[in-house]
Amino acid sequence: MLEKTPTTRVQAFLDRFGKALETGKTDEAASMFAEEGFWRDLVAFTWNIRTMEGRGEVRDMLNAQLKSVKPIGWKVAEGEEAAEADGVTEAWITFETQVARGYGHIRLKDGLIWTLLTTMAEQKGHEEKAGFTRPLGAKHGHGKDRKTWKEERDDEVAELGVSRQPYCLIIGGGQGGIALGARLGQLGVPTIIVEKNERAGDSWRKRYKSLCLHDPVWYDHLPYIDFPKNWPVFAPKDKIGDWLEMYTKVMELNYWPSTTAKKASYDEKAGEWTVVVERAGKEITLKPKQLVLATGMSGKPNLPKFRGQDVFKGEQQHSSAHPGPERYRGKKVVVVGSNNSAHDICAALWEGGADVTMVQRSSTHIVRSATLMDIGLGALYSEQAVANGVTTRKADLIFASLPYRILHEFQIPLYEQMRERDKDFYDALEKAGFMHDWGDDGSGLFMKYLRRGSGYYIDVGACDLVIDGSIKLKSGVGVKELKEHSVVLSDGTELPADLIVYATGYGSMNGWAADLISQEVADKVGKVWGLGSATTKDPGPWEGEQRNMWKPTQAENLWFHGGNLHQSRHYSQYLALQLKARMEGIPTPVYGLQQVHHKA
Amino acid sequence: MLEKTPTTRVQAFLDRFGKALETGKTDEAASMFAEEGFWRDLVAFTWNIRTMEGRGEVRDMLNAQLKSVKPIGWKVAEGEEAAEADGVTEAWITFETQVARGYGHIRLKDGLIWTLLTTMAEQKGHEEKAGFTRPLGAKHGHGKDRKTWKEERDDEVAELGVSRQPYCLIIGGGQGGIALGARLGQLGVPTIIVEKNERAGDSWRKRYKSLCLHDPVWYDHLPYIDFPKNWPVFAPKDKIGDWLEMYTKVMELNYWPSTTAKKASYDEKAGEWTVVVERAGKEITLKPKQLVLATGMSGKPNLPKFRGQDVFKGEQQHSSAHPGPERYRGKKVVVVGSNNSAHDICAALWEGGADVTMVQRSSTHIVRSATLMDIGLGALYSEQAVANGVTTRKADLIFASLPYRILHEFQIPLYEQMRERDKDFYDALEKAGFMHDWGDDGSGLFMKYLRRGSGYYIDVGACDLVIDGSIKLKSGVGVKELKEHSVVLSDGTELPADLIVYATGYGSMNGWAADLISQEVADKVGKVWGLGSATTKDPGPWEGEQRNMWKPTQAENLWFHGGNLHQSRHYSQYLALQLKARMEGIPTPVYGLQQVHHKA
Repeated sequence: MLEKTPTTRVQAFLDRFGKALETGKTDEAASMFAEEGFWRDLVAFTWNIRTMEGRGEVRDMLNAQLKSVKPIGWKVAEGEEAAEADGVTEAWITFETQVARGYGHIRLKDGLIWTLLTTMAEQKGHEEKAGFTRPLGAKHGHGKDRKTWKEERDDEVAELGVSRQPYCLIIGGGQGGIALGARLGQLGVPTIIVEKNERAGDSWRKRYKSLCLHDPVWYDHLPYIDFPKNWPVFAPKDKIGDWLEMYTKVMELNYWPSTTAKKASYDEKAGEWTVVVERAGKEITLKPKQLVLATGMSGKPNLPKFRGQDVFKGEQQHSSAHPGPERYRGKKVVVVGSNNSAHDICAALWEGGADVTMVQRSSTHIVRSATLMDIGLGALYSEQAVANGVTTRKADLIFASLPYRILHEFQIPLYEQMRERDKDFYDALEKAGFMHDWGDDGSGLFMKYLRRGSGYYIDVGACDLVIDGSIKLKSGVGVKELKEHSVVLSDGTELPADLIVYATGYGSMNGWAADLISQEVADKVGKVWGLGSATTKDPGPWEGEQRNMWKPTQAENLWFHGGNLHQSRHYSQYLALQLKARMEGIPTPVYGLQQVHHKA
Repeated sequence: MLEKTPTTRVQAFLDRFGKALETGKTDEAASMFAEEGFWRDLVAFTWNIRTMEGRGEVRDMLNAQLKSVKPIGWKVAEGEEAAEADGVTEAWITFETQVARGYGHIRLKDGLIWTLLTTMAEQKGHEEKAGFTRPLGAKHGHGKDRKTWKEERDDEVAELGVSRQPYCLIIGGGQGGIALGARLGQLGVPTIIVEKNERAGDSWRKRYKSLCLHDPVWYDHLPYIDFPKNWPVFAPKDKIGDWLEMYTKVMELNYWPSTTAKKASYDEKAGEWTVVVERAGKEITLKPKQLVLATGMSGKPNLPKFRGQDVFKGEQQHSSAHPGPERYRGKKVVVVGSNNSAHDICAALWEGGADVTMVQRSSTHIVRSATLMDIGLGALYSEQAVANGVTTRKADLIFASLPYRILHEFQIPLYEQMRERDKDFYDALEKAGFMHDWGDDGSGLFMKYLRRGSGYYIDVGACDLVIDGSIKLKSGVGVKELKEHSVVLSDGTELPADLIVYATGYGSMNGWAADLISQEVADKVGKVWGLGSATTKDPGPWEGEQRNMWKPTQAENLWFHGGNLHQSRHYSQYLALQLKARMEGIPTPVYGLQQVHHKA
């Protein structure tokens, strides 16, 4: 008799689960979940990105989707073994639907599903050509007037967007647009990426000179080509810029630099967009079926309004337009804001010999970089994780398997550890007058990122300058008004200033849609980003997934893509599969399209 | 008691072997080899690339080197298990020398060493910064006027070769120079690569338009950045060109395009080269300590002399200068030669609508591409090999572990299989009048490559055109003379011709040294390439390794580097370590510096 290993036990469970699904017993399938169980689906079942919370939501989804999805073949993934620890059995799983192959992850507790992740890996008959199926390249055999690779590529470059329309148009050629463009290219979806800058990578190159990634290399890989072993942990901005540029080239993306999207409108009857772009000074009208905004998850710059902004005789910039410290040696600079950009800019200005004051209007969450790497990311994204066999793909999926509803519960203890480890640091920071918080529920940086995309700084050195007074700090005050050569604060302090930097963040991404399409469409889509956690800057009701990101919106064939490098990499897979299915005419019944609760 | 596994048995053997070496018992160590055993060393013991054949040569080497090398710590490599099959036990091994860490491979037969491979992996205290030791990138902390990565890189580009001399100068920026430059960069050896073309990759781009790699992707990776999973099996030339260009950029090589080396001389007293280069029209004098010629293993084009070459009114080109078929539609072309280039050019000309005749003067070895991939390379370099855990590094080392003296014995049965598999093809080819051979001893293509670097064609389709007469064939004849509009063959046939392509191969690489330095130095170095196998075009005496490649030559601080992508990748590691050691002042006593038996 076979020994009952965790793997055989999970397989037996999957057999039962699969049978319930195959026979349409949705109640039975739902009852195999814990009362507080979760099913997170990335496209495979819902043609959406959705988390079903509890048995009722699982059953409702199955009742709606099961007939079209037709899942079969649930297995513990080949080459993997289930593992047991602390009463939880977990395993990598594979399954098939009528149109796709899926990969996923399951956690069982007391014989019931605690978490289930299902993801679409590839569509049957539309698999990427890679590994055993990679293209031959050389054209063996012979034929008169055959075209070479280069001739075919030159033809594609010359024709796409001119005599032949792209199926998909991506506005914005940063890492988001590039990663998605690469995936679509591999799936054979004709795609153009338009980018306002002159070169791929310029969206990094053009930022302030001391900028480096705040996320470490293991978290930052693009699809298909990993950074090499000698790549720095935190890549400097120009180096990332160069990498993106080379990536765009070797992945053969149809990338239009120096191109601005001017206007877009959707013809519902034709199911087609009309997008006017200006390419190197010339207007071109494109007619894609799908339009993706990848213009930066940060949205448009927030510029605060203060009395006297028209009176002030010095320079005023949003942080996104700050050129770096060179021009400001010996100058007096006031930086309004206290999050990542504010800190980075203050430190670089101080290093460059400016006199800098940071105006902190509300509290900020700080984590030291090394601590965040060790405690926050180390288990999934680190050299040690790689050595332990946690590939980037696995790390992404493990991360994706944790339901947002309970993610803060996993995060809180990590941040308690950080607080402990860096106690002296936080004490010094508070002694310097800095207003510090850990998020509304103590869940720290990553939850702030997911909920509001702001409100923190990953300390790479600026805090010491705040602590020792090199960067002057005015905290707990607002800006009352500007005078000709100064900033007057709410407590009456007057700060002489040659330059004011507004490190005041960004609006919601649907602001881009308002500019490009119409306010009406932007309102129809609603706020982009956030979970609906009812914490600061992330108003409820609970939505359970990032609003409007990487999934269908209320505006037909309009999509939002982006995020950090991790998200650009991971979610581009699912967005690409959604677009590919639509191009191929595969039915894509969307389950649970999000409602709009906030316009921005 | 421990079970006696192959691993524990190999470890026990290594313990004995290590002890004999540690105690200076060279006779005892030598006696642990089979009478016909081999020790191939890549730099670790000999500071050379040498194969010791039989106990006497092993003992002699140890007597000369042991005192300085001081090897210790012989182990079966961590995470590896020894394997037994057909009476041979083999294992991956690690060891240390006084200055380095080594990696190797051992095969035991009847309790004695049949083959031993020792390679230098890294020098102690000079390890590459990668993985756990990768650079941080961002400069955490703070400091006034710190330079960014880009500023430092810009400084390096501006200074190296201008106000600061490179330690190493590489002439030739194809895959050879690029791979070596990348390794040296990672080891912190200041290096400039000069390349006559305008862009990295042009040495591929500028060749005839239908050219694709004849070696498959798994064999072709560069160091540090593997080709992605979607990369074609046989990359088209322009795609490889683009990859090399991006690689040069992201690996931060100091690559000078549009630069020609004009003249070089060596000052023995100063231990320094003076090299005059012309960079974008301006002469610059460089003073490197080490000079590497990576100008192509093919050496300078061989142009045959025929009576009437001054009379012929059409075009005459060496194959290396052939621009592709576009200009020759409807023209009559005679291609002199029947190896790879001749076939590729004939096929492309036929496809492009030219009337082509191939003049075959001597017999050629043909292997069909798919057959070569399956039978010749599949075990080490294929998708299946990757799936079996044979990484590129392991494949390179397994390949390196087979001594050249007996390599043909491994090859002959493979080519017998190929002959069997493609019998109908060879019959048809011979029926078409094509003169075919399998190498002097039936050992086929790879041995021809190692021995003479020529004499074969990997069939990707041209043979069918020869067989069906689309490419006209004249074989067993020479060229008697050229007339104004024709080529007269030795059998009296007169072929009308608008273009003559001389696909007549290349000379020895030391021809480059004659041009750049002096005939005297070229003669001192002698013939480059070949094993001394006493087969056609590879005259004896037996040398046992590729002459003058990747190792010290008779000319101090003059090196030759290159070969196919596999060799450029693998041997660049050992050449880079030899150069690094010299820069660091690590003693590098060279054992068994090769003698010169042939001047070219």
